[in-house]
Amino acid sequence: MPRPSQEHKILDAALHCFAQRGYDGTRVKDIAECAGVTGGAIYRHYPSKEALARELYGRFMRTYSDALQQAASGNGPIGERLRRCLSAALTLYRANPAAMTFVLLRQHTFMPALPADFVYPVGVLERLIVEGQQSGTVRQGDPKLLAAIFAGCLLRPLIVSQLVAKGSFDPLRDERHDETIMQAAWSAVAAPT
Amino acid sequence: MPRPSQEHKILDAALHCFAQRGYDGTRVKDIAECAGVTGGAIYRHYPSKEALARELYGRFMRTYSDALQQAASGNGPIGERLRRCLSAALTLYRANPAAMTFVLLRQHTFMPALPADFVYPVGVLERLIVEGQQSGTVRQGDPKLLAAIFAGCLLRPLIVSQLVAKGSFDPLRDERHDETIMQAAWSAVAAPT
Repeated sequence: MPRPSQEHKILDAALHCFAQRGYDGTRVKDIAECAGVTGGAIYRHYPSKEALARELYGRFMRTYSDALQQAASGNGPIGERLRRCLSAALTLYRANPAAMTFVLLRQHTFMPALPADFVYPVGVLERLIVEGQQSGTVRQGDPKLLAAIFAGCLLRPLIVSQLVAKGSFDPLRDERHDETIMQAAWSAVAAPT
Repeated sequence: MPRPSQEHKILDAALHCFAQRGYDGTRVKDIAECAGVTGGAIYRHYPSKEALARELYGRFMRTYSDALQQAASGNGPIGERLRRCLSAALTLYRANPAAMTFVLLRQHTFMPALPADFVYPVGVLERLIVEGQQSGTVRQGDPKLLAAIFAGCLLRPLIVSQLVAKGSFDPLRDERHDETIMQAAWSAVAAPT
Protein backbone atom coordinates (compact mmCIF):
# COMPACT_ATOMS: atom_id res chain seq x y z
CA MET A 1 0.00 0.00 0.00
CA PRO A 2 1.44 3.40 -0.95
CA ARG A 3 2.49 5.76 1.79
CA PRO A 4 -0.04 8.59 2.35
CA SER A 5 2.27 11.11 0.71
CA GLN A 6 2.58 8.91 -2.36
CA GLU A 7 -1.17 8.47 -2.57
CA HIS A 8 -1.60 12.22 -2.41
CA LYS A 9 0.98 12.64 -5.16
CA ILE A 10 -0.87 10.13 -7.35
CA LEU A 11 -4.25 11.82 -6.89
CA ASP A 12 -2.76 15.25 -7.60
CA ALA A 13 -1.02 13.93 -10.70
CA ALA A 14 -4.26 12.35 -11.92
CA LEU A 15 -6.15 15.63 -11.56
CA HIS A 16 -3.39 17.43 -13.40
CA CYS A 17 -3.47 14.91 -16.26
CA PHE A 18 -7.28 14.97 -16.51
CA ALA A 19 -7.18 18.77 -16.72
CA GLN A 20 -4.40 18.77 -19.33
CA ARG A 21 -5.35 15.81 -21.55
CA GLY A 22 -8.92 15.15 -20.57
CA TYR A 23 -10.04 12.06 -18.70
CA ASP A 24 -10.35 10.01 -21.89
CA GLY A 25 -6.92 10.99 -23.12
CA THR A 26 -5.18 10.09 -19.87
CA ARG A 27 -3.61 6.68 -19.34
CA VAL A 28 -2.40 5.26 -16.02
CA LYS A 29 1.10 5.49 -17.49
CA ASP A 30 0.72 9.28 -17.88
CA ILE A 31 -0.37 9.62 -14.27
CA ALA A 32 2.57 7.57 -13.08
CA GLU A 33 5.03 9.68 -15.08
CA CYS A 34 3.55 12.91 -13.80
CA ALA A 35 3.59 11.66 -10.19
CA GLY A 36 7.12 10.30 -10.54
CA VAL A 37 6.07 6.80 -9.46
CA THR A 38 5.86 3.48 -11.29
CA GLY A 39 2.66 2.25 -12.90
CA GLY A 40 2.83 -0.63 -10.42
CA ALA A 41 2.65 1.80 -7.50
CA ILE A 42 -0.63 3.12 -8.87
CA TYR A 43 -2.10 -0.31 -9.54
CA ARG A 44 -1.24 -1.42 -5.99
CA HIS A 45 -3.76 1.12 -4.76
CA TYR A 46 -6.25 1.50 -7.61
CA PRO A 47 -7.24 -1.36 -9.87
CA SER A 48 -7.93 1.01 -12.78
CA LYS A 49 -8.08 4.60 -13.97
CA GLU A 50 -11.82 4.49 -13.27
CA ALA A 51 -11.23 3.46 -9.64
CA LEU A 52 -8.76 6.30 -9.21
CA ALA A 53 -11.25 8.73 -10.75
CA ARG A 54 -14.00 7.51 -8.43
CA GLU A 55 -11.76 8.08 -5.42
CA LEU A 56 -10.98 11.61 -6.59
CA TYR A 57 -14.62 12.26 -7.31
CA GLY A 58 -15.73 11.00 -3.89
CA ARG A 59 -13.11 12.98 -1.99
CA PHE A 60 -13.73 16.27 -3.69
CA MET A 61 -17.49 15.80 -3.66
CA ARG A 62 -17.36 15.42 0.13
CA THR A 63 -15.28 18.58 0.48
CA TYR A 64 -17.68 20.45 -1.77
CA SER A 65 -20.76 19.17 0.01
CA ASP A 66 -19.32 20.03 3.45
CA ALA A 67 -18.44 23.54 2.32
CA LEU A 68 -21.95 24.08 0.98
CA GLN A 69 -23.61 22.68 4.08
CA GLN A 70 -21.60 25.05 6.21
CA ALA A 71 -22.38 28.02 3.98
CA ALA A 72 -26.09 27.16 4.04
CA SER A 73 -26.33 26.85 7.82
CA GLY A 74 -26.74 29.70 10.25
CA ASN A 75 -29.06 32.65 10.20
CA GLY A 76 -29.96 35.19 7.61
CA PRO A 77 -32.43 35.42 4.77
CA ILE A 78 -32.42 32.64 2.18
CA GLY A 79 -30.97 34.99 -0.44
CA GLU A 80 -27.96 35.55 1.79
CA ARG A 81 -27.46 31.88 2.49
CA LEU A 82 -27.72 30.94 -1.19
CA ARG A 83 -25.22 33.68 -1.90
CA ARG A 84 -22.83 32.21 0.67
CA CYS A 85 -23.17 28.85 -1.08
CA LEU A 86 -22.18 30.34 -4.41
CA SER A 87 -19.32 32.16 -2.78
CA ALA A 88 -18.11 28.89 -1.18
CA ALA A 89 -18.27 27.16 -4.58
CA LEU A 90 -16.25 29.95 -6.19
CA THR A 91 -13.66 29.76 -3.39
CA LEU A 92 -13.29 26.00 -3.85
CA TYR A 93 -13.03 26.41 -7.60
CA ARG A 94 -10.24 28.98 -7.28
CA ALA A 95 -8.37 26.84 -4.74
CA ASN A 96 -8.43 23.84 -7.08
CA PRO A 97 -9.90 24.52 -10.54
CA ALA A 98 -8.92 21.09 -11.87
CA ALA A 99 -10.73 19.27 -9.06
CA MET A 100 -13.88 21.37 -9.27
CA THR A 101 -14.02 21.07 -13.05
CA PHE A 102 -13.51 17.32 -12.91
CA VAL A 103 -16.26 16.89 -10.34
CA LEU A 104 -18.76 19.12 -12.11
CA LEU A 105 -18.15 17.93 -15.64
CA ARG A 106 -17.72 14.24 -14.94
CA GLN A 107 -20.56 13.84 -12.47
CA HIS A 108 -22.60 11.92 -15.03
CA THR A 109 -19.81 9.34 -15.14
CA PHE A 110 -18.93 8.89 -11.50
CA MET A 111 -21.96 9.94 -9.52
CA PRO A 112 -23.30 6.44 -8.83
CA ALA A 113 -20.19 5.62 -6.75
CA LEU A 114 -21.29 7.69 -3.75
CA PRO A 115 -23.34 6.25 -0.86
CA ALA A 116 -27.12 6.46 -1.21
CA ASP A 117 -27.50 8.84 1.75
CA PHE A 118 -24.82 11.27 0.54
CA VAL A 119 -25.96 14.91 0.65
CA TYR A 120 -25.20 16.28 -2.79
CA PRO A 121 -24.37 19.97 -3.11
CA VAL A 122 -27.49 20.46 -5.18
CA GLY A 123 -29.48 18.92 -2.30
CA VAL A 124 -28.19 21.64 0.00
CA LEU A 125 -29.45 24.26 -2.45
CA GLU A 126 -32.77 22.47 -2.74
CA ARG A 127 -33.39 22.65 1.02
CA LEU A 128 -32.73 26.37 1.04
CA ILE A 129 -35.10 26.81 -1.86
CA VAL A 130 -37.88 24.91 -0.11
CA GLU A 131 -37.38 27.08 2.97
CA GLY A 132 -37.47 30.21 0.81
CA GLN A 133 -40.67 29.11 -0.88
CA GLN A 134 -42.28 28.61 2.53
CA SER A 135 -41.33 32.13 3.56
CA GLY A 136 -42.35 33.52 0.15
CA THR A 137 -38.92 34.84 -0.93
CA VAL A 138 -38.29 32.14 -3.56
CA ARG A 139 -40.42 31.71 -6.69
CA GLN A 140 -42.85 28.85 -7.11
CA GLY A 141 -41.79 25.82 -9.08
CA ASP A 142 -40.22 22.45 -8.42
CA PRO A 143 -37.41 22.92 -5.84
CA LYS A 144 -35.16 20.38 -7.58
CA LEU A 145 -35.54 22.27 -10.84
CA LEU A 146 -34.88 25.64 -9.18
CA ALA A 147 -31.80 24.23 -7.43
CA ALA A 148 -30.53 22.99 -10.80
CA ILE A 149 -31.14 26.40 -12.39
CA PHE A 150 -29.34 28.16 -9.54
CA ALA A 151 -26.37 25.80 -9.90
CA GLY A 152 -26.43 26.25 -13.67
CA CYS A 153 -25.78 29.98 -13.25
CA LEU A 154 -22.31 29.03 -12.00
CA LEU A 155 -21.79 25.83 -14.00
CA ARG A 156 -21.98 27.32 -17.47
CA PRO A 157 -19.58 30.21 -16.68
CA LEU A 158 -17.24 27.59 -15.20
CA ILE A 159 -17.37 25.62 -18.45
CA VAL A 160 -16.61 28.78 -20.43
CA SER A 161 -13.75 29.46 -18.06
CA GLN A 162 -12.30 26.02 -18.71
CA LEU A 163 -12.76 26.21 -22.48
CA VAL A 164 -11.24 29.60 -23.15
CA ALA A 165 -8.03 30.02 -25.01
CA LYS A 166 -5.39 31.95 -23.12
CA GLY A 167 -5.95 35.68 -23.36
CA SER A 168 -9.66 35.45 -24.22
CA PHE A 169 -12.57 35.97 -21.86
CA ASP A 170 -12.44 33.92 -18.65
CA PRO A 171 -15.41 34.83 -16.42
CA LEU A 172 -13.92 33.22 -13.30
CA ARG A 173 -10.28 34.22 -13.53
CA ASP A 174 -10.65 37.10 -11.13
CA GLU A 175 -13.41 38.08 -8.75
CA ARG A 176 -14.63 40.99 -10.82
CA HIS A 177 -17.58 39.01 -12.17
CA ASP A 178 -18.63 37.24 -8.98
CA GLU A 179 -21.18 39.88 -8.10
CA THR A 180 -22.91 39.51 -11.49
CA ILE A 181 -23.11 35.75 -11.04
CA MET A 182 -24.48 36.03 -7.52
CA GLN A 183 -27.10 38.62 -8.44
CA ALA A 184 -28.16 36.73 -11.55
CA ALA A 185 -28.42 33.38 -9.76
CA TRP A 186 -30.48 34.86 -6.95
CA SER A 187 -32.75 36.72 -9.39
CA ALA A 188 -33.32 33.45 -11.25
CA VAL A 189 -34.89 31.81 -8.21
CA ALA A 190 -36.21 34.80 -6.23
CA ALA A 191 -39.97 35.37 -6.04
CA PRO A 192 -41.00 38.10 -8.50
CA THR A 193 -41.37 41.42 -6.69
CA MET B 1 -17.92 5.75 -49.54
CA PRO B 2 -21.08 4.73 -47.67
CA ARG B 3 -24.43 5.50 -49.25
CA PRO B 4 -26.17 8.50 -47.63
CA SER B 5 -28.67 6.22 -45.92
CA GLN B 6 -25.83 4.15 -44.47
CA GLU B 7 -24.01 7.25 -43.26
CA HIS B 8 -27.18 8.40 -41.55
CA LYS B 9 -27.58 5.00 -39.94
CA ILE B 10 -24.00 5.14 -38.65
CA LEU B 11 -24.40 8.60 -37.16
CA ASP B 12 -27.70 7.63 -35.51
CA ALA B 13 -26.15 4.48 -34.10
CA ALA B 14 -23.20 6.44 -32.72
CA LEU B 15 -25.51 8.87 -30.92
CA HIS B 16 -27.48 5.97 -29.52
CA CYS B 17 -24.30 4.27 -28.24
CA PHE B 18 -22.90 7.48 -26.75
CA ALA B 19 -26.18 8.03 -24.89
CA GLN B 20 -26.32 4.43 -23.65
CA ARG B 21 -22.68 3.69 -22.83
CA GLY B 22 -21.12 7.12 -22.76
CA TYR B 23 -18.64 8.33 -25.32
CA ASP B 24 -15.69 6.77 -23.50
CA GLY B 25 -17.38 3.41 -23.17
CA THR B 26 -18.31 3.20 -26.86
CA ARG B 27 -16.07 1.43 -29.36
CA VAL B 28 -16.34 1.60 -33.14
CA LYS B 29 -17.33 -2.07 -32.97
CA ASP B 30 -20.37 -1.16 -30.82
CA ILE B 31 -21.47 1.49 -33.30
CA ALA B 32 -21.11 -0.96 -36.19
CA GLU B 33 -23.19 -3.60 -34.39
CA CYS B 34 -25.88 -1.10 -33.53
CA ALA B 35 -26.00 0.26 -37.09
CA GLY B 36 -25.99 -3.22 -38.58
CA VAL B 37 -22.92 -2.50 -40.70
CA THR B 38 -19.34 -3.77 -40.61
CA GLY B 39 -16.58 -1.96 -38.76
CA GLY B 40 -14.93 -1.54 -42.14
CA ALA B 41 -17.93 0.41 -43.42
CA ILE B 42 -17.47 2.90 -40.60
CA TYR B 43 -13.71 3.22 -41.11
CA ARG B 44 -14.25 3.86 -44.82
CA HIS B 45 -15.95 7.09 -43.88
CA TYR B 46 -14.45 8.05 -40.52
CA PRO B 47 -10.84 7.34 -39.59
CA SER B 48 -11.70 7.09 -35.88
CA LYS B 49 -14.40 7.37 -33.24
CA GLU B 50 -13.18 10.92 -32.62
CA ALA B 51 -13.68 11.86 -36.27
CA LEU B 52 -17.19 10.44 -36.19
CA ALA B 53 -17.91 12.37 -33.01
CA ARG B 54 -16.62 15.58 -34.56
CA GLU B 55 -18.90 15.09 -37.55
CA LEU B 56 -21.90 14.56 -35.24
CA TYR B 57 -20.92 17.53 -33.14
CA GLY B 58 -20.54 19.80 -36.17
CA ARG B 59 -23.84 18.73 -37.74
CA PHE B 60 -25.93 19.16 -34.65
CA MET B 61 -24.16 22.35 -33.63
CA ARG B 62 -25.13 23.86 -37.00
CA THR B 63 -28.75 22.81 -36.56
CA TYR B 64 -28.78 24.23 -33.05
CA SER B 65 -27.14 27.49 -34.09
CA ASP B 66 -29.55 27.95 -37.03
CA ALA B 67 -32.56 27.34 -34.79
CA LEU B 68 -31.33 29.90 -32.28
CA GLN B 69 -30.53 32.48 -34.95
CA GLN B 70 -34.03 32.12 -36.30
CA ALA B 71 -35.60 32.37 -32.86
CA ALA B 72 -33.54 35.47 -32.06
CA SER B 73 -34.45 37.32 -35.24
CA GLY B 74 -37.58 39.32 -35.84
CA ASN B 75 -39.30 41.86 -33.70
CA GLY B 76 -40.31 41.95 -30.11
CA PRO B 77 -38.70 42.89 -26.82
CA ILE B 78 -35.40 41.17 -25.95
CA GLY B 79 -37.10 39.18 -23.19
CA GLU B 80 -39.42 37.66 -25.78
CA ARG B 81 -36.62 36.85 -28.20
CA LEU B 82 -34.50 35.23 -25.48
CA ARG B 83 -37.55 33.26 -24.50
CA ARG B 84 -38.00 32.06 -28.07
CA CYS B 85 -34.35 30.93 -28.03
CA LEU B 86 -34.92 28.83 -24.91
CA SER B 87 -38.07 27.43 -26.39
CA ALA B 88 -36.20 26.48 -29.58
CA ALA B 89 -33.50 24.75 -27.51
CA LEU B 90 -36.13 22.79 -25.58
CA THR B 91 -37.81 21.78 -28.84
CA LEU B 92 -34.53 20.53 -30.29
CA TYR B 93 -33.75 18.67 -27.08
CA ARG B 94 -37.09 16.90 -27.12
CA ALA B 95 -36.76 16.03 -30.80
CA ASN B 96 -33.34 14.43 -30.21
CA PRO B 97 -32.27 14.28 -26.55
CA ALA B 98 -29.20 12.16 -27.32
CA ALA B 99 -27.86 14.66 -29.86
CA MET B 100 -28.49 17.72 -27.69
CA THR B 101 -26.93 16.06 -24.66
CA PHE B 102 -23.90 14.97 -26.63
CA VAL B 103 -23.37 18.45 -28.04
CA LEU B 104 -23.83 20.26 -24.74
CA LEU B 105 -21.85 17.89 -22.54
CA ARG B 106 -19.01 17.13 -24.92
CA GLN B 107 -18.45 20.64 -26.20
CA HIS B 108 -15.21 20.89 -24.25
CA THR B 109 -13.92 17.94 -26.27
CA PHE B 110 -15.06 18.72 -29.78
CA MET B 111 -15.53 22.45 -29.94
CA PRO B 112 -12.21 23.29 -31.64
CA ALA B 113 -13.28 21.37 -34.75
CA LEU B 114 -15.69 24.09 -35.96
CA PRO B 115 -14.65 26.89 -38.31
CA ALA B 116 -13.36 30.07 -36.67
CA ASP B 117 -16.28 32.18 -37.93
CA PHE B 118 -18.97 29.76 -36.72
CA VAL B 119 -21.77 31.50 -34.83
CA TYR B 120 -22.11 29.54 -31.59
CA PRO B 121 -25.53 29.38 -29.96
CA VAL B 122 -24.15 31.25 -26.97
CA GLY B 123 -23.01 33.97 -29.40
CA VAL B 124 -26.62 34.41 -30.52
CA LEU B 125 -27.64 34.90 -26.89
CA GLU B 126 -24.78 37.32 -26.36
CA ARG B 127 -25.95 39.58 -29.19
CA LEU B 128 -29.46 39.74 -27.74
CA ILE B 129 -28.01 40.58 -24.35
CA VAL B 130 -25.92 43.44 -25.74
CA GLU B 131 -29.02 44.79 -27.48
CA GLY B 132 -30.99 44.48 -24.23
CA GLN B 133 -28.32 46.30 -22.28
CA GLN B 134 -28.44 49.14 -24.80
CA SER B 135 -32.19 49.46 -24.37
CA GLY B 136 -31.93 49.05 -20.59
CA THR B 137 -33.93 45.85 -20.23
CA VAL B 138 -30.94 43.58 -19.48
CA ARG B 139 -28.77 43.93 -16.38
CA GLN B 140 -25.26 45.34 -16.51
CA GLY B 141 -22.34 42.91 -16.59
CA ASP B 142 -20.18 41.23 -19.19
CA PRO B 143 -22.47 40.05 -22.04
CA LYS B 144 -20.48 36.80 -22.49
CA LEU B 145 -20.91 36.04 -18.82
CA LEU B 146 -24.64 36.83 -18.90
CA ALA B 147 -25.11 34.68 -21.99
CA ALA B 148 -23.36 31.81 -20.19
CA ILE B 149 -25.60 32.27 -17.13
CA PHE B 150 -28.72 32.33 -19.30
CA ALA B 151 -27.62 29.12 -21.05
CA GLY B 152 -26.74 27.57 -17.69
CA CYS B 153 -30.37 27.89 -16.58
CA LEU B 154 -31.20 25.26 -19.19
CA LEU B 155 -27.94 23.29 -19.17
CA ARG B 156 -28.01 22.18 -15.53
CA PRO B 157 -31.66 20.98 -15.68
CA LEU B 158 -30.72 19.10 -18.87
CA ILE B 159 -27.87 17.38 -17.03
CA VAL B 160 -30.25 16.43 -14.22
CA SER B 161 -32.66 15.13 -16.82
CA GLN B 162 -29.96 12.92 -18.32
CA LEU B 163 -28.72 11.65 -14.95
CA VAL B 164 -32.01 10.65 -13.37
CA ALA B 165 -32.89 7.09 -12.71
CA LYS B 166 -36.15 6.00 -14.29
CA GLY B 167 -39.13 7.12 -12.25
CA SER B 168 -37.32 9.90 -10.39
CA PHE B 169 -37.50 13.59 -11.13
CA ASP B 170 -36.84 14.56 -14.74
CA PRO B 171 -37.30 18.32 -15.19
CA LEU B 172 -37.45 18.15 -18.99
CA ARG B 173 -39.58 15.06 -19.55
CA ASP B 174 -42.74 17.02 -20.13
CA GLU B 175 -43.40 20.70 -20.74
CA ARG B 176 -44.79 21.38 -17.29
CA HIS B 177 -41.55 22.96 -16.09
CA ASP B 178 -40.69 24.98 -19.19
CA GLU B 179 -42.37 28.10 -17.87
CA THR B 180 -40.29 27.99 -14.66
CA ILE B 181 -37.09 27.65 -16.68
CA MET B 182 -38.03 30.49 -19.01
CA GLN B 183 -39.02 32.85 -16.20
CA ALA B 184 -35.95 32.01 -14.13
CA ALA B 185 -33.54 32.41 -17.04
CA TRP B 186 -35.01 35.75 -18.03
CA SER B 187 -35.00 36.99 -14.41
CA ALA B 188 -31.32 36.02 -14.16
CA VAL B 189 -30.35 38.44 -16.92
CA ALA B 190 -33.12 41.07 -16.77
CA ALA B 191 -32.33 44.53 -15.41
CA PRO B 192 -33.53 44.84 -11.80
CA THR B 193 -36.88 46.62 -11.68
